[in-house]
Formats: sequence, C-alpha cells, structure tokens
Amino acid sequence: MNSDRDWFTERSQGFAMSLQIRRKLHDEQSPYQRIEVYETESFGRLLTLDGITMLTSRDNFIYHEMMAHPALFSHPRPRDVVIVGGGDCGTLHEVLKHDDVENVLQVELDERVTRVCERFFPELCASNGDTRARFLFEDAVAWMAAAAPDGADAIILDTTDPIGQAERLFEAPFYTDCRRVLRPGGILAAQSESPLLDLELLLGMRKAMCRAGFAAVRTLLFPQCTYPSGWWSCTLARRERAFEETRAEPSGARRIETRYYNAAVHRASQALPEFLQEVLERP
Amino acid sequence: MNSDRDWFTERSQGFAMSLQIRRKLHDEQSPYQRIEVYETESFGRLLTLDGITMLTSRDNFIYHEMMAHPALFSHPRPRDVVIVGGGDCGTLHEVLKHDDVENVLQVELDERVTRVCERFFPELCASNGDTRARFLFEDAVAWMAAAAPDGADAIILDTTDPIGQAERLFEAPFYTDCRRVLRPGGILAAQSESPLLDLELLLGMRKAMCRAGFAAVRTLLFPQCTYPSGWWSCTLARRERAFEETRAEPSGARRIETRYYNAAVHRASQALPEFLQEVLERP
Repeated sequence: MNSDRDWFTERSQGFAMSLQIRRKLHDEQSPYQRIEVYETESFGRLLTLDGITMLTSRDNFIYHEMMAHPALFSHPRPRDVVIVGGGDCGTLHEVLKHDDVENVLQVELDERVTRVCERFFPELCASNGDTRARFLFEDAVAWMAAAAPDGADAIILDTTDPIGQAERLFEAPFYTDCRRVLRPGGILAAQSESPLLDLELLLGMRKAMCRAGFAAVRTLLFPQCTYPSGWWSCTLARRERAFEETRAEPSGARRIETRYYNAAVHRASQALPEFLQEVLERP
Repeated sequence: MNSDRDWFTERSQGFAMSLQIRRKLHDEQSPYQRIEVYETESFGRLLTLDGITMLTSRDNFIYHEMMAHPALFSHPRPRDVVIVGGGDCGTLHEVLKHDDVENVLQVELDERVTRVCERFFPELCASNGDTRARFLFEDAVAWMAAAAPDGADAIILDTTDPIGQAERLFEAPFYTDCRRVLRPGGILAAQSESPLLDLELLLGMRKAMCRAGFAAVRTLLFPQCTYPSGWWSCTLARRERAFEETRAEPSGARRIETRYYNAAVHRASQALPEFLQEVLERP
C-alpha cells in the first residue's frame, strides 16, 4: 500500500511505517505472492511480499540474529537444523555461522523469493553454497507432517504473518508435527510478531505450543525498526524440559561474528516487562 | 506533517511513522510552539509539538517509566529531584511513586503544554496536586546556571529533540551546570534518542557528559513504538563514581506499580548489542 509515490507504506491496526524510496528495483507476481524490491533513501534495499515489509538491508541483522542464535545457543550441540520459510536466507546465513551445525534444511514455499534475494540481497545469501545447506521449495506443513521423527535439533519458523496459507504455521497441529520431528532436547523457535500490537496472537502461539506437548516456552523481545510497532518477538519452545542456562560461548572453535546478538543481549531479551509478565505467565 | 488527511505522519531521515486519526481535539500556537492533540484510531490520544510526536495514551508508559525508575533506583535514597522539560507530567507522575522522594521541581519552558495535558491527558497529570511537586515555567538552561549547588539527587532531562532552543540541553555547558546542582552520589538521566537513527548524537551526549565531569555514563535501551525507529534510549550519568548494582526493590514501604519497568527489565535495558558496544565503549 503506497499512500505517496515516493514512500512505501505498510499499515496495520491504525499504525503505519513508511520508508522513503528512490526507485523500485524489482516487481513480480510469483505463483504465491507479489515480490517487490525497492532502493530506499536511508535503509538500503527493501523487500516486500504482498505489500508487507520483509526486510531492509539496514536493520534485518537484528531479526535474523535473534531468530538463529538464541535457539542454537539454547541447545548443547545443534547438529541438524530445519528452517521453515526464511526464503531471504538471512536466518540460514546466521545458522551456518555455528560450527556445530552439520546440516540445514530450508523448506520455503516460494522459490522465487530465494532467487530474487540471491540477486538483490547477496549478503544474505552469501552462505547458500555452503555444503551443509539444502533447499526444498514446497509446503512446509505437508513436509513436516510426512517427515521422519527425531531428525532435527532445532526448527526455526521464519515465517510471514499468520495470514492465508501461513496461518497453519501458527497452530497446534503444525507444532505437534514439529515436536515429533525434533530429537530429545530439541528446540523450536518461531517469530511471534509484535508484543505490543499482536499480544493475543503471541499468547495463542504459546498456548498452542504447550498443547502440542512442548514442555517450556520462552518469549524473547527485540527491536525491529521496520516491522509494525518497531518491537518484535521470537518464541522458543523446548521439547521436553525447562530452559537451562544458555551457553555464553559457541561450543565450536570459530567465534561467531554478530552485530546485534551477544550473550548479554540473549539474557536481556528474556526479561519481560510487567504487562507482558502478567499475561504470559498467568495460568 | 500530514501526508493524508486521516493520518498523522512524522518523517525523519527517510523513515516515517503514522497514526490513523479520528479527529483533532486541540490545536494552538503557544509562545513557543504549536501544540496539537488528536484522537487516534488505535493509540488513544496523541500529543504533538511542532508536528513531532510527544506521546500517545497507549505507549507512553514505557518512555515515562524508563525516564524515571532506572535513575531513581540507581540512587540509594533520592530525596530531591529536578525534571527538565517533562511538560506532559508523565515522568513526574512516575517519580512521585517513590516514597523516598520529598521534593520534585519541574522546570518546563512552555506552561501551555502542561495546561493542555491537564485537560487531555489527566492520567499523566494525576499527581500534579501532590504537595511534593513544584512547577516552574521558564528556561531550564538559565535556571540551571543560576541554581544553588548540591540541591538535587537526580536530574531528569525529559526534553524534546535537540532542535533550536532545545539543542543547548544536549551540550557540555548545560551538563556541567547539572553536575554542579547534583549532590554527591547524584544521577543525571537524559532521553538520548534512537540508538539506530541517532547514534552520533547519542555518542556526542555521552562524550559531553564525560567532559562535564561525570564519572560514569550508561545508556539504557527500550522500545518506544511511536518514536522514530521504535527504539529509544535514556542515558544515565553518575556524578563521581561508577554505577553500582541497582536496588531491586524500592527502599520505601510502598510497592511501585508499573506496566513496563521491573528490576529484570532495568538490568536488561543495559545490555548493549554488539554494534552499540563497539561504538559506545571505544575510547
């Protein structure tokens, strides 16, 4: 939705975020959605799907690091990782920074998103040629239902908003399949929208994860400038036991380079403001 | 700046935030600025000064609590507090929740802001009749330069952006006066803009505080949906020694009711993301 030729605008619940654009770099209708790329004035490049902001060059590092590292650092040794969605490959790029990780399977519905990002966001796709990465372009709900059990240490749900097809990715039957695909000790991480604007959805996701048999859930908070309200969340769920202390350091030899994430930020992201604590921790 | 009749829009550095409005409730030109109040669709009431968002009913609690409580809980017993700016009285309301506090002096340039807020934001002004509160409507730079030394335990700079007159409130000469007005152990707290969009300003403020003789500075981060980038900061400076552990609980008998702030959130707000740590902690 553009209210003005020179600005890209996304409106949601009486709130709007806009970025000033220099020009449109790409526009296509894939079999699933409209994919657009803009050059903005001050946020680098912008990717939108059906008019909804997916990422900008400038601030996507926060989201992608927070989708990848808290989950992986909460697992003693994550070897096999499944990413659902994540077509821009930014989360994949972060996951592959972990030497522990031996295999990453990314299940994204729309191959065109990945192809467009390879062209316009090469920095996010820099690890796509890593021999540990494998790509499937198909429906993740069907894939998860048919997948063998005990195959993953972490599943990361890097999805679009729960609209249309994507709605099923926020519900208990899908989480039940995810839990089955996880090994003992496994962790699920799901982007869980704005803690200010989408609190009911966030609550619903947590409840659905518990109904699906996950033993503990924990919501992490972080800023995300170009998503509605500028405040976002990732909800982690553990397969069968409570969250222990996270590892402060990678267990692999390689230091993991980040711009947002570090051990202190990981701990801090778990601190719940009063109004969230009241609703998230009520029985 | 309104790009559309039904939306209030604030643009800054190629980024814009908009709120859908139902109607304008108030519009006046004070001797200092244009003061407008809107009824929004989903954020309650909105106050703007010269077209810049000051607060909404829905999300101001985060900003006001983070301007008041971290500073006061970082002091062993804050009795005398000076607020600079703060005409909407939201910070004052939070400060007065502390039983330790015996006197609060608010030095705001524009009396009309306070009068308008008393009418349209009565919840923020609910403590204005507290016998501990005193109001001066005059230039804070002149007031601070003339004030007696050793009169305050905490000074809170709840100012507008550093534009025009307000610029002096972000500079070393003013901070030097603040330091002189603080008692030993005293703490300065200043709103310090967006860590994403205004990083150079934030760095400049910290350096100016050090030049003014403050012994330690610490920047706290928090979400603020309706300010540019949705991510904001408050920088604390201690008069003559490093920050110790903060008190977890109020020293007064009364529990302090908050919606955002708690001891865990206070600690968490101090965790610096990698990119900030690199620039803020470099010598």
